[in-house]
Amino acid sequence: MKQKADKYRLDLRPHMKTAQLIEVADLAKNIGISKITVSSVSMAQYFAKARYQDICIAFPINILEIETIFSLSKKIKLAVIIDQFQTAEFLANQTTNKLDLWIEITTTANRSGIFFQNTALISQILGILKSNPNICFSGFLTHAGHTYAAKDTSEILEIHQRELEVFSRLKESFSDYSPKISIGDTPSATLSDNFEGIDEIRPGNFMYYDLMQETLGVCKLEDIAVALAVPLVSVYKERREALICGGAVHLSKEYIVDNGKKIFGKVYKTTNNMQWDLGKEIGYVKSISQEHGIIALNPGKEIEQGEILAVLPVHSCLTANLMCGINCKEKKFLFV
Amino acid sequence: MKQKADKYRLDLRPHMKTAQLIEVADLAKNIGISKITVSSVSMAQYFAKARYQDICIAFPINILEIETIFSLSKKIKLAVIIDQFQTAEFLANQTTNKLDLWIEITTTANRSGIFFQNTALISQILGILKSNPNICFSGFLTHAGHTYAAKDTSEILEIHQRELEVFSRLKESFSDYSPKISIGDTPSATLSDNFEGIDEIRPGNFMYYDLMQETLGVCKLEDIAVALAVPLVSVYKERREALICGGAVHLSKEYIVDNGKKIFGKVYKTTNNMQWDLGKEIGYVKSISQEHGIIALNPGKEIEQGEILAVLPVHSCLTANLMCGINCKEKKFLFV
Repeated sequence: MKQKADKYRLDLRPHMKTAQLIEVADLAKNIGISKITVSSVSMAQYFAKARYQDICIAFPINILEIETIFSLSKKIKLAVIIDQFQTAEFLANQTTNKLDLWIEITTTANRSGIFFQNTALISQILGILKSNPNICFSGFLTHAGHTYAAKDTSEILEIHQRELEVFSRLKESFSDYSPKISIGDTPSATLSDNFEGIDEIRPGNFMYYDLMQETLGVCKLEDIAVALAVPLVSVYKERREALICGGAVHLSKEYIVDNGKKIFGKVYKTTNNMQWDLGKEIGYVKSISQEHGIIALNPGKEIEQGEILAVLPVHSCLTANLMCGINCKEKKFLFV
Repeated sequence: MKQKADKYRLDLRPHMKTAQLIEVADLAKNIGISKITVSSVSMAQYFAKARYQDICIAFPINILEIETIFSLSKKIKLAVIIDQFQTAEFLANQTTNKLDLWIEITTTANRSGIFFQNTALISQILGILKSNPNICFSGFLTHAGHTYAAKDTSEILEIHQRELEVFSRLKESFSDYSPKISIGDTPSATLSDNFEGIDEIRPGNFMYYDLMQETLGVCKLEDIAVALAVPLVSVYKERREALICGGAVHLSKEYIVDNGKKIFGKVYKTTNNMQWDLGKEIGYVKSISQEHGIIALNPGKEIEQGEILAVLPVHSCLTANLMCGINCKEKKFLFV
């Protein structure tokens, strides 16, 4: 992703809501990626504490958290996003420290953000923000979350193309403000080779990828960089099934459908140094309840009670979030 | 539930995997319910630390955790469950402290447990367990999880009736061992008035209930005892929608379908003392991503940026688990 960003002269500001870990952010920092995106004020505090100095909170400002936001803006270069006139007005009156500000735009009108056609509201907001020199208007930020629901890669590229057109018109309309454009989704950032008019990308899922992205054609199985390590608790030979300690509280309930079968994760043997072996797929998680997962074993595969297996997750963002939970002594990240 | 248990002379051992909190367990303790069920060794340790002295871990023994289990069995009256001959053999050889043991049975052969018709395996296990006087065989334990997938209350009662028949035959077949029967699901425990042959019930969800149980006809809306408090971040008047800070990492991605619409939670106004007002339903969560929730507003309902709203969860077990997570400063339990 760094190579792509460099090639197209894009700022790469990876979203840490997938990885959520300083250790992973540091892997990126080591190759020169030090700006990050987060999805909550508490996540911003977590990374600020670990000396991340340039953070964008890509969730519209929750006015109840404004004191914490202002206090954080004294310590680091903080970017926030808004999609309400009321918030703009409040910030124009109250901001006393430098704050980078993006206006969130939606092209689908079913997520957060101002609908792109509502240029009157955008003008109003820009007008009021001008009154406060501490506020630095950065530009328009969006997250084309509908690429995740695309049926294939060509639909992803079509969606991306339409986004580019919308944002190039918006950039043109508000050229007096020299707005930057920041886009967010992993599928487009991975697949596209056209970033005309784009200044910043904020993909997050790409740091791990997952089975959903693999199914969509965005990545290969070998690109998936996280798995849940689970103990094999019971084997039911006659049913060719097995019980793992790994349920909805570890993996989430997201699934993909493969040949009519629901798949909550693909299961592999692990090696002694806690890596998984893609050559040794032993089955898939066929059903899941709160803490139980039932594996359907592939023909000819044998497993033993007490083994540690690796489950490649369907949606790594949710699985990684659950792995970081408080009751997680038995859960581990396995890195390739 | 206590009144029902008393009426039918059942041991009530509520499953704490829904509530997960000492404070809630203590509400039950105050009315004389001091035995509990948990779903992991770490949850058993958490409650043991809070002076719960009689705990059943209703997840088949994970052999990798055996040292912790043995050490816990020195401190409290501990019950464990098994569904593998290998585990029975291990316990017969290694158990040096008193341990209550249940054999887990499944009637559907798609969950954990020994299939009820496999009496040969049950006999084998009972045979080997006899050799160790520290092991106290309690009986057969099951969780009729398929009641949660029933289409209505009459199907729940039919499933329950079939379970009673299976377990009365099993009790008969192994009468030499005087086995008790322990059943687990909230729908049957709530709805049935027939507990013939049953000795113990372990419902957990009933402590909170949720929209899934309400949809199933197991409870009423006013029985739901937990909600997620969420800040209202943005209002999109033209779309009659609003953004809450409440997504899949708070609520899980479980949904119910109502008139063809997916509902991820029902949304109510809160009062000053942080209770929700069922008379003031303002809409429902229509879509959810990692941290964002989009509310569709009911006609005529108005809300303000910065309000705290209450979301009744679809699946309280998963929501409560997420509420207890480590990055949860903004999340709160709201109790009636």
